[in-house]
Amino acid sequence: MENQNTNLVVVGSAALDDIETIAGKVENELGGSAIYFALSARFFATAGIVGVVGEDFPSSAIAILDENRVNRDGLEVAKGKTFRWSGKYHENFNDRTSIFTHLNVFKSFRPKIPDHYRNARFLFLGNIDPGLQLHVLNEASNSQFVAMDTMNFWIDGKPEMLRKVLQRVDGLLINDSEAKALTGDSNIVTASKKIHKMGPKIVIIKQGKYGAFLSQKNSETEKSKFFYAPAFPLEKIADPTGAGDSFAGGFMGFLAAAKKITWETYCQAVIAGSTIASFNVQDFGVQRLTSINKNAVSERMKAFYNLTHFSLQDN
Amino acid sequence: MENQNTNLVVVGSAALDDIETIAGKVENELGGSAIYFALSARFFATAGIVGVVGEDFPSSAIAILDENRVNRDGLEVAKGKTFRWSGKYHENFNDRTSIFTHLNVFKSFRPKIPDHYRNARFLFLGNIDPGLQLHVLNEASNSQFVAMDTMNFWIDGKPEMLRKVLQRVDGLLINDSEAKALTGDSNIVTASKKIHKMGPKIVIIKQGKYGAFLSQKNSETEKSKFFYAPAFPLEKIADPTGAGDSFAGGFMGFLAAAKKITWETYCQAVIAGSTIASFNVQDFGVQRLTSINKNAVSERMKAFYNLTHFSLQDN
Repeated sequence: MENQNTNLVVVGSAALDDIETIAGKVENELGGSAIYFALSARFFATAGIVGVVGEDFPSSAIAILDENRVNRDGLEVAKGKTFRWSGKYHENFNDRTSIFTHLNVFKSFRPKIPDHYRNARFLFLGNIDPGLQLHVLNEASNSQFVAMDTMNFWIDGKPEMLRKVLQRVDGLLINDSEAKALTGDSNIVTASKKIHKMGPKIVIIKQGKYGAFLSQKNSETEKSKFFYAPAFPLEKIADPTGAGDSFAGGFMGFLAAAKKITWETYCQAVIAGSTIASFNVQDFGVQRLTSINKNAVSERMKAFYNLTHFSLQDN
Repeated sequence: MENQNTNLVVVGSAALDDIETIAGKVENELGGSAIYFALSARFFATAGIVGVVGEDFPSSAIAILDENRVNRDGLEVAKGKTFRWSGKYHENFNDRTSIFTHLNVFKSFRPKIPDHYRNARFLFLGNIDPGLQLHVLNEASNSQFVAMDTMNFWIDGKPEMLRKVLQRVDGLLINDSEAKALTGDSNIVTASKKIHKMGPKIVIIKQGKYGAFLSQKNSETEKSKFFYAPAFPLEKIADPTGAGDSFAGGFMGFLAAAKKITWETYCQAVIAGSTIASFNVQDFGVQRLTSINKNAVSERMKAFYNLTHFSLQDN
């Protein structure tokens, strides 16, 4: 465990999941948005987790975090049981049915930020109540780059609070259906324009198995810059749980490790996020994330390069 | 009209369309797969059309072809009326309702290949009865590269004849739902593998507004090469009619104009096809295809480059 300042902090859930897909079934699998995030960021940077688990959180799960470059100084152990979710994915992997959601200790989660997290230059506000996101923003306000996630539940349920958070963050990472819920617009170009006006200068709209769209607002010209990373083609998918969180972890981890941040860095970070997400879905829970090394990540980023690059010259 | 050998030939439909979308409505608009194809290929090469129209085919439509580098020596004028289609697109532009389909002279279409088309090095078999596709293959058998399109109607209705054609072509261009119908597989990687085994060494699976996947079979290693081009991000779409045919026209036109064909050429050709398709959907019918110049195409191919390219180096 590190005592120095943590450069990258994520606030989100820590959970134990039961998951079933056509590829198989697991129970009591380590999960939750902050967990997926930190185990994805680890290939580039150490992430500090702000979250809560119950007394039943197994030591084997703690060991996974400790063995994989995750700082858990902000992971509170509260009286009660850990957040539990159970879901079954349909054959297409896009739709899923939640069997149960037991919030348990997560229900009364009030993020507590360790002192050595407060000056983190990179902060990710996972998909939690926008009121709590705002609280974290106020507690760790020296960040160079803050990005956030959200979901339809908050877009519909707490729109005003969500707008307050959006005004204060640099980046928003959401999927296409959430972008539509937030803007009323299903076109990624016009939806991202509307989101830029809400605050974020960096907007990433994820399109699941198709890829991810990045837009950067240019405040001077009002003309945005675009980048698109297709999803890495995979023959088999085992479990899509945590794909969005592992994308965010790879993206933020890459940024946190960069010497300086330019447009090119954001594009590379989207590829890093897509790469880690593509590993994540190849096995259940965090199993793949914890079994690959940095070399495998670099190799797949090279394969990504070959997948999308072409020359404008005749050959 | 050229008398020299035509290097690129397309067989398909020529039609007059009534189209309605949320962006507007047109009637008696020039359409049909061979028309969209040739007006898209024109930015790179002259395409010769093999098709049929009726006596009602307007001289204004003939003028559009003659003014836009299309060879219509193989466009027969038969007794009767031109193929007419009317469709209304739903708000999402993905789904459409056919109001009517009057095959008219297309019903008894029997492709007749002009002599100076027979040695075309590039041949595209548009989406017609596989029996007719085979007939054309037999008539113009000196091609260096033959590609084809098909649809669920033939996949379900004439599977054996379709397999015969597939065995003899170099490339198949289909959309994801057709790939699934043909292979039973909704995964683009495994579906393209199965299609390679049916014959084509080049498989392109188009994913509509998301992009296009290219796979090249390596006969020696059994390991395919992949390329993915996202769809070019557009703020507004007017009419998706002919998007697949304009993709095919841009793709084949680019190949026909290339000095030699390597893996890189196929990737560039996919970008060319995606670029032309992105123009095509910006206005009704062939209006945009006939109002832009080669310079606009080159500029958008450059924008495509910027959309997808990133460096693997730190900056």
